[in-house]
Amino acid sequence: MDTYTTIIAVASIVTSGITIGIGVIGPAIGEGRSVATALSSMAQQPDSSATITRTLFVGLAMIESLAIYCFVVSMILIFANPFWSRALT
Amino acid sequence: MDTYTTIIAVASIVTSGITIGIGVIGPAIGEGRSVATALSSMAQQPDSSATITRTLFVGLAMIESLAIYCFVVSMILIFANPFWSRALT
Amino acid sequence: MDTYTTIIAVASIVTSGITIGIGVIGPAIGEGRSVATALSSMAQQPDSSATITRTLFVGLAMIESLAIYCFVVSMILIFANPFWSRALT
Amino acid sequence: MDTYTTIIAVASIVTSGITIGIGVIGPAIGEGRSVATALSSMAQQPDSSATITRTLFVGLAMIESLAIYCFVVSMILIFANPFWSRALT
Amino acid sequence: MDTYTTIIAVASIVTSGITIGIGVIGPAIGEGRSVATALSSMAQQPDSSATITRTLFVGLAMIESLAIYCFVVSMILIFANPFWSRALT
Amino acid sequence: MDTYTTIIAVASIVTSGITIGIGVIGPAIGEGRSVATALSSMAQQPDSSATITRTLFVGLAMIESLAIYCFVVSMILIFANPFWSRALT
Amino acid sequence: MDTYTTIIAVASIVTSGITIGIGVIGPAIGEGRSVATALSSMAQQPDSSATITRTLFVGLAMIESLAIYCFVVSMILIFANPFWSRALT
Amino acid sequence: MDTYTTIIAVASIVTSGITIGIGVIGPAIGEGRSVATALSSMAQQPDSSATITRTLFVGLAMIESLAIYCFVVSMILIFANPFWSRALT
Amino acid sequence: MDTYTTIIAVASIVTSGITIGIGVIGPAIGEGRSVATALSSMAQQPDSSATITRTLFVGLAMIESLAIYCFVVSMILIFANPFWSRALT
Amino acid sequence: MDTYTTIIAVASIVTSGITIGIGVIGPAIGEGRSVATALSSMAQQPDSSATITRTLFVGLAMIESLAIYCFVVSMILIFANPFWSRALT
Amino acid sequence: MDTYTTIIAVASIVTSGITIGIGVIGPAIGEGRSVATALSSMAQQPDSSATITRTLFVGLAMIESLAIYCFVVSMILIFANPFWSRALT
Amino acid sequence: MDTYTTIIAVASIVTSGITIGIGVIGPAIGEGRSVATALSSMAQQPDSSATITRTLFVGLAMIESLAIYCFVVSMILIFANPFWSRALT
Amino acid sequence: MDTYTTIIAVASIVTSGITIGIGVIGPAIGEGRSVATALSSMAQQPDSSATITRTLFVGLAMIESLAIYCFVVSMILIFANPFWSRALT
Amino acid sequence: MDTYTTIIAVASIVTSGITIGIGVIGPAIGEGRSVATALSSMAQQPDSSATITRTLFVGLAMIESLAIYCFVVSMILIFANPFWSRALT
Repeated sequence: MDTYTTIIAVASIVTSGITIGIGVIGPAIGEGRSVATALSSMAQQPDSSATITRTLFVGLAMIESLAIYCFVVSMILIFANPFWSRALT
Repeated sequence: MDTYTTIIAVASIVTSGITIGIGVIGPAIGEGRSVATALSSMAQQPDSSATITRTLFVGLAMIESLAIYCFVVSMILIFANPFWSRALT
Repeated sequence: MDTYTTIIAVASIVTSGITIGIGVIGPAIGEGRSVATALSSMAQQPDSSATITRTLFVGLAMIESLAIYCFVVSMILIFANPFWSRALT
Repeated sequence: MDTYTTIIAVASIVTSGITIGIGVIGPAIGEGRSVATALSSMAQQPDSSATITRTLFVGLAMIESLAIYCFVVSMILIFANPFWSRALT
Repeated sequence: MDTYTTIIAVASIVTSGITIGIGVIGPAIGEGRSVATALSSMAQQPDSSATITRTLFVGLAMIESLAIYCFVVSMILIFANPFWSRALT
Repeated sequence: MDTYTTIIAVASIVTSGITIGIGVIGPAIGEGRSVATALSSMAQQPDSSATITRTLFVGLAMIESLAIYCFVVSMILIFANPFWSRALT
Repeated sequence: MDTYTTIIAVASIVTSGITIGIGVIGPAIGEGRSVATALSSMAQQPDSSATITRTLFVGLAMIESLAIYCFVVSMILIFANPFWSRALT
Repeated sequence: MDTYTTIIAVASIVTSGITIGIGVIGPAIGEGRSVATALSSMAQQPDSSATITRTLFVGLAMIESLAIYCFVVSMILIFANPFWSRALT
Repeated sequence: MDTYTTIIAVASIVTSGITIGIGVIGPAIGEGRSVATALSSMAQQPDSSATITRTLFVGLAMIESLAIYCFVVSMILIFANPFWSRALT
Repeated sequence: MDTYTTIIAVASIVTSGITIGIGVIGPAIGEGRSVATALSSMAQQPDSSATITRTLFVGLAMIESLAIYCFVVSMILIFANPFWSRALT
Repeated sequence: MDTYTTIIAVASIVTSGITIGIGVIGPAIGEGRSVATALSSMAQQPDSSATITRTLFVGLAMIESLAIYCFVVSMILIFANPFWSRALT
Repeated sequence: MDTYTTIIAVASIVTSGITIGIGVIGPAIGEGRSVATALSSMAQQPDSSATITRTLFVGLAMIESLAIYCFVVSMILIFANPFWSRALT
Repeated sequence: MDTYTTIIAVASIVTSGITIGIGVIGPAIGEGRSVATALSSMAQQPDSSATITRTLFVGLAMIESLAIYCFVVSMILIFANPFWSRALT
Repeated sequence: MDTYTTIIAVASIVTSGITIGIGVIGPAIGEGRSVATALSSMAQQPDSSATITRTLFVGLAMIESLAIYCFVVSMILIFANPFWSRALT
C-alpha cells in the first residue's frame, strides 16, 4: 500500500457507505406511503384487492429500483472499482 | 498513479456516489406519492382503472427519468470519465 | 496534467454531479404532485380524462425542462467545458 | 493558464452549477403546485377549462422566468464571463 | 490580473450566482401559491374570472419584483461592479 | 488597490448579495400568502372585492417595505459605502 | 486604513447585512399571515370591515416594529458605529 | 486601537447584530399568529370585539417584551459595553 | 487588558447575545400559540372570558419565566461574571 | 490567570449560555401547547374548569422541571463549578 | 492543573451542558403533547377524569425518566467523573 | 495520564453525553404520541380502558427499550470502557 | 498504547455512540406511531382487539429489528472489533 | 499496524456505523406508517384482515430489504472489506 492507493481506498469506503445510507431514505418513505395507502384502499374497497395489489407491486418495483441504483453504485465502488484496479497495477 | 490522477479519481468516486445518493430522494418521494394516489383513486373509482394505470405509468416514467439523469452522470464519472481518460494519457 | 488542469477537472467533476443531484429534487417532487393530482382528478371526473391528460403532459414538460437545464449544465461541464478546453491548450 | 485564471475558472464552474442547481428547486415546486391545482380545478369545473388553461400558462411562464434568470446567470458565467475575458487578455 | 483583482472577481462571480440562486426560491413558492389559488378560485366562482385575473397579475408583479431585486444586484455585480471598475484602474 | 481596500470590497460584495438574497425569502412567502387569500376571498364574496383589494394593497406595501429595507442596505453597501469611501481616501 | 480599522469595517459591513437579511424573515411571514387572515375575515363578515382594518393596522405596526429594530441596528452599524468612530480617532 | 480592543469591538458588533436578527424571528411569528387569530375571532364573534382587542394587546405586549430583551442586550453591547469600557481604560 | 481577559470578555459577549437570541424563539412561539387560542376561545365562549383570561395570564407567566432564565444568564455574563471578576484581580 | 484556567473559564461561560438557551426551546413549546389546549378545553366545557386547571398546573410543573434541570446545570457551571474550583487551587 | 486535566475538564463541562440541553427537547415536546391531550380528553369526557389523570401521570413519569437519564449523565460528568478522578491522581 | 489516555477519555466523555442526548429525542416523541393517543382513546371509549392501558404499557416498554440501548452504551463508555481499561494497563 | 491503536479506539468509541444515538430516532418514531394507531383502533373497534394486538406485536418486532441492527453494530465496535483485535496483535 | 492500514481501519469503522445509523431512519418511518395504517384499516374493515395482513407483510419485507442493504454494506465493511484485506497483505 502506498499513499495514493490508501486515499482511493478511503474515498471508496466512505462513499459506498454514504451512498446507500442516504439513498434508502427516499425509497423507504415512498414505499411506506405506497403500502400504507394500499392497505387503507383495500379496507375501503375490498373488491378491488387484486387490481390494487398488482399496481402496488409494480409501483414498489419502480421505487425499489431507485434504491437498487444506489446499491449498485455502492457495490461497484467496493468490488469493481476501476480507479482501485488502476491504482493496484 | 501520481498525485494528479489520484485527486481526480477521488473526486470522481465521491461525486458519483453523492450524485446518485442525493438524486434518488426526490424521485422516490415523488413516485411514492403518485403510486399512493393511484391506489386510492382506484379504490374510489374502480371503473377508471385502465386510464389511471396508463397515466400512472407515464408519470412514473417521467419521474424515473430524473433519477436516470443522476445515474447516467454517476456512471459517466465512473466508467467514461473524460477527465480521467485525459489524466491517464 | 499539471496542477491547474487538475484543479479545473476536479471542480468540473464535483460541480457536474452536485448540480444534477440537487437539481432533480424539486422537479421530482413537483412532478409527483402533478401526477398524483391528475390521478385523483381522473377518478373524480372520468369524463374530463382527455383534458386532464393533455394539461398534465404540458405541465410535466414545463417541470421536466427545469431538470433539463441542470442536466445541460452538467453535461456542458463534463463534455464541452470551455475552461477545460482552454486549460488543455 | 496561470494561478489567477485557474481560480477564476474554478469559481465560475462551481457557481454556474450551484446557481442552476439551487435555482430550480423553488420554481419546480411552484409549478408543480400550479399544475396540480389546475388539474383538480378542471375536474371540479370542466366548463372553465379554457380560462383555467390560459391562466395556468401565464402563471407557469411567470414562474419559469425565475428559473430562466438562474439559467441566464449560469450561462453568462460559463460562456460570456467578463471576468474570465479580462483574465485571458 | 493581480491578486487583488482576482479576489474581487471571484467574490463577484460567486455572489452573483448565489444571490439569484437563493433569491428565486421564495418568489417561486409565493407565485406558485398565488397561481394555484387563482385557479381553484376560478373553478369555484367562474363569474369573478376578470377580477381574479386582474388581482393575480398585480400580485404576481409585486412578487416578481422581489426576484428582480436579486437579479439586478446579480447583474450589477457582473457587469457594473464599482469595486471591479476601481480595481482595474 | 491594496490589501485593506480589497478586503473591504470583498466583504461589501458578498454581503450585498447575501442580504438581498436571503431578505426576499420571507417577503415573497408572505406576499404569496396574502395574494392567495385575497383571490380565494374574492371568489367567496365577490361583493367585497373593493375592500379586499384596498386592504391587500396596503398589506403588500407593508411587506414589500421589508424587502426594500434589505435592498436599501444592499445598494448602500455597493454604491454609498462609508467604509469604502474612507478606505479610498 | 490600518489592519484594526479594516477588521472593524469588515465586521460592521457583514453584520449590518446579515442582521437585516435574517431579521425580515420572521416579520414578513407574520405580516403575511395577518394580512391573509384579515382578507378572509372580511370576506366572511363584511360588516366588521372597519374593526378588522383597525386591528390589522395596529398589529402590522407592532410586527413592523420588530423589523425596524433590526434596521436600526443595521443603520447604526453603518452610519453611527461607536467602535468605528473610536478606531478612526 | 490595539489588538485586544479590536477583538472585543468585533465580537460586540457581530453579536449585537446576530442577537437582534435571530431574536425577532420567534416574536414576529408569535405576534403574527396572535393578530391573525384575533382578526378571525372578531369576524366570527363581532360582539366580543372589546374583550378580544384588550386581550390581544396584553398578549402582544408580553411577546414584544421578548424582542425587547434582545434589543436591550444588543444596545448594551453597542453603547454600554462594560468589557469595551474596561478595554479603553 | 491582556490575552486572557480578552478571551474571557469575547466569550462573555458572544454567549450573552446568543443565549438570549436563541432563548426567546421557543417562548415567543409558545406565547403566540397561547394568546391565539385564548382569543379564539373567547370568541367561541364569551361567558368564560374571566376564567380564560386568568388561566392565560398564569400560563404566559410560566412561559415568560423560561425567557427570563435566559435573560438572567445573559445579564450575569455581562454585569456579574465571576470569571471576569477573577480575571481582573 | 493562566492558560489553563482561561480555557476552563471560556468553556464554562459558553456552555452555561448554550445549555439554557437551547434547553428552553422544548419546554416553551410544550407549555405553550398545554396552555393553549387548556384554554380551548375550558371554552368547550366550562364546568370542568377546576379539574382542567389543576391538571394543567401539574403538567406545567413537570415540563418546567425540564427547564429547571438546564438552569441548574447552567448555574452550577457559573457559580459552583468543581473544575474551576480545582483550577484555582 | 496540566494540559491533560484541562482538556478532560473542558470536555466534561461542554458535554454535561450539551447533553441536558439537547436531551430535554424531546421529553418537553412529548410531555406537552400528553398534557394537552389529557386536558382536551377531560373536557370531552369529564366522567373519565380519574382514569385519564392516572394514566397521564404514569405516562409523564415514563417520559420524564428519559430526561432523567440525560440529567444523570450530566451530573456524573460534573461530580462523579471517573476520567477526571483518574486524571487527578 | 499521557496523551493517548487523555484522547480516549475525551472521546468517551463526549460520546457518552451525545449518545444519550440525541438518543432520547425519538423515544420521547414516540412515547408522548402513544400516551396522548391512549388518553384520547380512553375518553372516547371508556369501556376499553383496561385493554388500552395494557397495550399502552407494552408499547411504552418497547419504546423505552430504545432509549435504554443508548443509556447502556453511554454507561459502558463511562464505567466499563474496554478501550480505557486497555489504555490504563 | 501507541498512536495507531489510539486512533482506532477513538474512532470505535465515537462511532459506536453515534450509531445507536442516531439509529433509534427512526424506530422510536415508527413504534410510537404504530402504538398510537393501535390504541385508537382498539377504542374504535374493541371487538378486533386480538387481531390488532397480534399485528401490532409483529410490526413492533420488525421495527425493533432495525434498532437492533444499530445496537449490534455498536456492540461489535466496542466488544468484538476486528480492527482493534488486529491493532493489538 | 502502519499509517495506511490505520487510516483504512478508521474509515471502515466510521462508515460502517454511519451507514446503518442513517440507513434505518427511512425504513423505520416507512414501516411505522405501514403498520399504523394496517391497524386502522383492520379496525375499519375487520373482514379484510387476512388480505391486509398478507399485503402488510409483503410491504414490510420490501421496506426491510432497504435496511438490509445498509446492514450488508456495514457488515462487508467490518468483516469482508477487500481494501482492508489488501492492506494487510
